Amino acid sequence: MTIADRWLLPDGMDEVLPPQASRMEELRRALLDLYHRWGYDLVVPPPVEFLDSLLTGTGTDLDLQTFKLTDQLTGRMMGASADVTPQVARMDAHSLKRRGPARLCYCSHVLRAKADPYQGGRSPVQVGVELFGHAGLEADLEILRLALDSLATAGADEVHLALGHIGIYRALVQAADLSREAEAALFEAIERKSPAETEALVAAQIHDGAVARMLRALPQLHGDVEMLGEARRVFAESPAAVGDALDQLEALCRGVADAHPDVTLYLDLADLRGYQYHTGMMFAAYVPGYGQALAKGGRYDDTGQAFGRARPATGFSMDLKLLATLVTDEPAVDGIWAPAVAIDDAAARSRLDAVVTRLRADGERVVRALPGQSTGPAEHRCNRQLVRMGDDWQVSPLA
Amino acid sequence: MTIADRWLLPDGMDEVLPPQASRMEELRRALLDLYHRWGYDLVVPPPVEFLDSLLTGTGTDLDLQTFKLTDQLTGRMMGASADVTPQVARMDAHSLKRRGPARLCYCSHVLRAKADPYQGGRSPVQVGVELFGHAGLEADLEILRLALDSLATAGADEVHLALGHIGIYRALVQAADLSREAEAALFEAIERKSPAETEALVAAQIHDGAVARMLRALPQLHGDVEMLGEARRVFAESPAAVGDALDQLEALCRGVADAHPDVTLYLDLADLRGYQYHTGMMFAAYVPGYGQALAKGGRYDDTGQAFGRARPATGFSMDLKLLATLVTDEPAVDGIWAPAVAIDDAAARSRLDAVVTRLRADGERVVRALPGQSTGPAEHRCNRQLVRMGDDWQVSPLA
Repeated sequence: MTIADRWLLPDGMDEVLPPQASRMEELRRALLDLYHRWGYDLVVPPPVEFLDSLLTGTGTDLDLQTFKLTDQLTGRMMGASADVTPQVARMDAHSLKRRGPARLCYCSHVLRAKADPYQGGRSPVQVGVELFGHAGLEADLEILRLALDSLATAGADEVHLALGHIGIYRALVQAADLSREAEAALFEAIERKSPAETEALVAAQIHDGAVARMLRALPQLHGDVEMLGEARRVFAESPAAVGDALDQLEALCRGVADAHPDVTLYLDLADLRGYQYHTGMMFAAYVPGYGQALAKGGRYDDTGQAFGRARPATGFSMDLKLLATLVTDEPAVDGIWAPAVAIDDAAARSRLDAVVTRLRADGERVVRALPGQSTGPAEHRCNRQLVRMGDDWQVSPLA
Repeated sequence: MTIADRWLLPDGMDEVLPPQASRMEELRRALLDLYHRWGYDLVVPPPVEFLDSLLTGTGTDLDLQTFKLTDQLTGRMMGASADVTPQVARMDAHSLKRRGPARLCYCSHVLRAKADPYQGGRSPVQVGVELFGHAGLEADLEILRLALDSLATAGADEVHLALGHIGIYRALVQAADLSREAEAALFEAIERKSPAETEALVAAQIHDGAVARMLRALPQLHGDVEMLGEARRVFAESPAAVGDALDQLEALCRGVADAHPDVTLYLDLADLRGYQYHTGMMFAAYVPGYGQALAKGGRYDDTGQAFGRARPATGFSMDLKLLATLVTDEPAVDGIWAPAVAIDDAAARSRLDAVVTRLRADGERVVRALPGQSTGPAEHRCNRQLVRMGDDWQVSPLA
């Protein structure tokens, strides 16, 4: 094996070097502090769980994305967490069992066997929040606004918020009474935004003329909030659930516009991309220059049912690694250079130690030179130095 | 599958719930801030690498602890990081290539196929520092003192520091000219602290009387710094490297005692437990009530050689999950309860929004009630509430 082979990292499994790692850490703190101020409590899910727990109620996309591992202790299959959301739903349903609404947040490295084309590489640092125990739009609005505040915290501007509702597609498909295979094929055609395939499937499989007409119209129903008027005309004869979903989208648009008038709102009633377990409103937030969504979320009621407690749930997540690329501050050149002292010069070391300890306790960054080292203060981002004055030491600007 | 089966977590793969997760987060911040003040830059290693890179130059213990995964993109074997230290050595040698000493720190979840009996479960959050590019004792002393400052930051008192040096055992074994198998058997016997096995192996394998006598004496050489006098007598005829190691230990003991007079120092010249790739001084820090070491480290020169750049290196690591159990502060009951407003009451919502946004910007924790929710302010750790005064809102104590 050559040395170059040993350097290679697997595709999408990135390391983060200075100063980017510090930018990530600062953003992590700012976001977790934001969530704390909104009443969200931090949890740390396990990086590995038994596969049965991890994939319960989450669909096949997540299964394909999950690295499988054998537990040497039990012989059971385990999976590396590819998405924190279902884990937090398990924690809410089983471990915490709180009465009333529960607000939880997290920031954890996850692993994916293949990259999610809609969000992140294969080792994103997933940061997000989940609000359990409330089925109302007020909870959804809180989640949308907190997602937008998160992006603002990261320094995003010109945010485009794409909003949809899985309930519309679900109600139409239910009325069409399709086989499971036909439903899966239709979902994929619409997810891929392929009008020809959608048209062919609708023509072949759907015999109810009104439903067929509405499913054909679905991919055209996108645009700003004015589009909802057109949608109401198209869906005039639809199941009641479709009208409810349109009402919900309208109320959420109003609520978002009030709090974030600068955000561009975009509705897309046929957007099903990358939503794995959602049951209500769904959203993705975009910023110019980024092909992927920077935040993604929605409502996913009853995921906890498999763990013995069905709870309404709504939330969002982001990839901290991606989000931190919005931050471009250069690391400050701010530090005090302390001269090298040999380990056997006990008296000099003891005097200098006291000064260095005091400066660090005051919050200063103090870098100690090591005997014989070839680099100087500038290479270690120092702008000051400790200079000996008789028996004492003083902080002076670099010469 | 029953619901109870789905709840089960694999042994040693723990979740961290509130409030413990917040204690961990606070300690994480305090430690990374400490390392920043000492001049250490944060890095985030990838959670998965190709197995060749991950295990280069690290010995078989780490191999057995590493979960293996197949990369679907390339068919190559990958491993989940079980120990961050060799990864950071790769980053120093290949990715950063800094001139002179480089100081790096990290805080990352790692995964272990089996628990390390000497430190942590199967999913520790490994936090630590590495100092590359300086072979002197001054670097080792900095690492020892920073480890002790880390424990103090976590609130540890009555710290016992066990100090050893792999160079003594290595020099004796080299002088004994053993076969590889015999050397491995002897290492294991001494590592397990089995005097009978050690005696049998020495008697059978070692023909040089002086070396046999010194290897037999090794397991008895432990105690406080005074023990070094006895060691010097035992090793009077030893290879020069043994005398060097004793000198190093004595200088490090003095340096530690000066800065941390409250720490109990303990030397053990035969302690080889859990050191996988070390080349010089090694240490473990213990606190009463904990069977495992809370911090563990030492010198491990030239790990970067496999990546094209041999560098002296010294460092330590800790398990943040374990360390945070030293912190027992109860979470503050500190928050403002905001009354529920229905989503369609736009006027009321807008007025309340402005107040809540301002309070959060001032750093306050504000928890918004959701319409119809069954729990009250006390269950959400609030000690104040927003009360309507005409058209405005005021913060008042809870009734």
